[in-house]
Amino acid sequence: MTKVLVLHSVGLLRSALTALLRSEESFDVAASGWCTAQQHVESLRPDVCVVDLDCPGTATMLEGGPAGGGAALGRHIGLLVLASAARPGALRKAFEARALGYVDKDASAGRLVRAIRKVAEGERFVDESLAFGFLEASRMPLTARELSVLARAAEGESIAEIARGLHLSNGTVRNYMASATRKVGARNRIDAIRITQGAGWV
Amino acid sequence: MTKVLVLHSVGLLRSALTALLRSEESFDVAASGWCTAQQHVESLRPDVCVVDLDCPGTATMLEGGPAGGGAALGRHIGLLVLASAARPGALRKAFEARALGYVDKDASAGRLVRAIRKVAEGERFVDESLAFGFLEASRMPLTARELSVLARAAEGESIAEIARGLHLSNGTVRNYMASATRKVGARNRIDAIRITQGAGWV
Repeated sequence: MTKVLVLHSVGLLRSALTALLRSEESFDVAASGWCTAQQHVESLRPDVCVVDLDCPGTATMLEGGPAGGGAALGRHIGLLVLASAARPGALRKAFEARALGYVDKDASAGRLVRAIRKVAEGERFVDESLAFGFLEASRMPLTARELSVLARAAEGESIAEIARGLHLSNGTVRNYMASATRKVGARNRIDAIRITQGAGWV
Repeated sequence: MTKVLVLHSVGLLRSALTALLRSEESFDVAASGWCTAQQHVESLRPDVCVVDLDCPGTATMLEGGPAGGGAALGRHIGLLVLASAARPGALRKAFEARALGYVDKDASAGRLVRAIRKVAEGERFVDESLAFGFLEASRMPLTARELSVLARAAEGESIAEIARGLHLSNGTVRNYMASATRKVGARNRIDAIRITQGAGWV
């Protein structure tokens, strides 16, 4: 039997993904939200954790949030993410958290089942439709500083607040904002935030 | 038998919701993405359409998009939406599209099944946990003009572009932006966009 843990913050989608995987007789499926993820991981010791990259809370978890960090998860358990090529930033976060499996959210249920089997054996599984997303992720033009300025601006912080928060001058924050806007081909700051958020970078 | 059609733009989640509902023996379940929704509605004549309010494409459909418009759908078929109290704007769009069923996305699978039965009988079903969202929706402070200015700004349009698009002067657009920002209690334009997008208004 392969022990599968579905982690998702939305109750109904968690139940639905569980129902889908329970139709596989060789899978022993459990599910949890993010708050109790760590406990479930410790008590169940799943072979594979299935995570939706677009689900609220996933990015925080992958970057080392409540569940002890995605990298911690990825080191001990086969991490499998449901992803989309349109969000290269999210793909990169999953990669940095050592995910083994990358399944396109538009794939068939059969592909997800095959991917789970692969990851349970410690092998990598990457949907070829996600390849373009990985390519985009490798060409990410923004620096970490530009990204953190954009992320704070996206939360509604003013230039002065961002400057205080990152120990920079107002002028430097404006420069980062301008270079980020130019690099992603945006028309203005709001457009730069829209583009980077859409791609899963901030 | 109750004929249920699951409409969702994300393949795997569509399959998962279908698997969940197929465990009910009295349901005859089909699924479709948005592109082929109209054909499926016409050929299957479902009793109930299940729609995820947060799924890309849903808002467009509810406001009269490709599938002939949500109101058209709601008039002929029992429309049931999977919703969240945190997005009152999306709830209002569903209400205007004459949805009969409103199920909290964090509800149990059993509640969704009960809601589908109700809606199939032509009755209304509203999860009580969504009540606060409906209250928020009824207190929406922004005018249609302020919302359309914000929506265009969120797409990255400049003040001048918005002014041209809506046949207004630049000063009037600035005034709408300022009043919208003040009314939603935002710190600046970007914050106003963040707040209204998060609530499902734009």
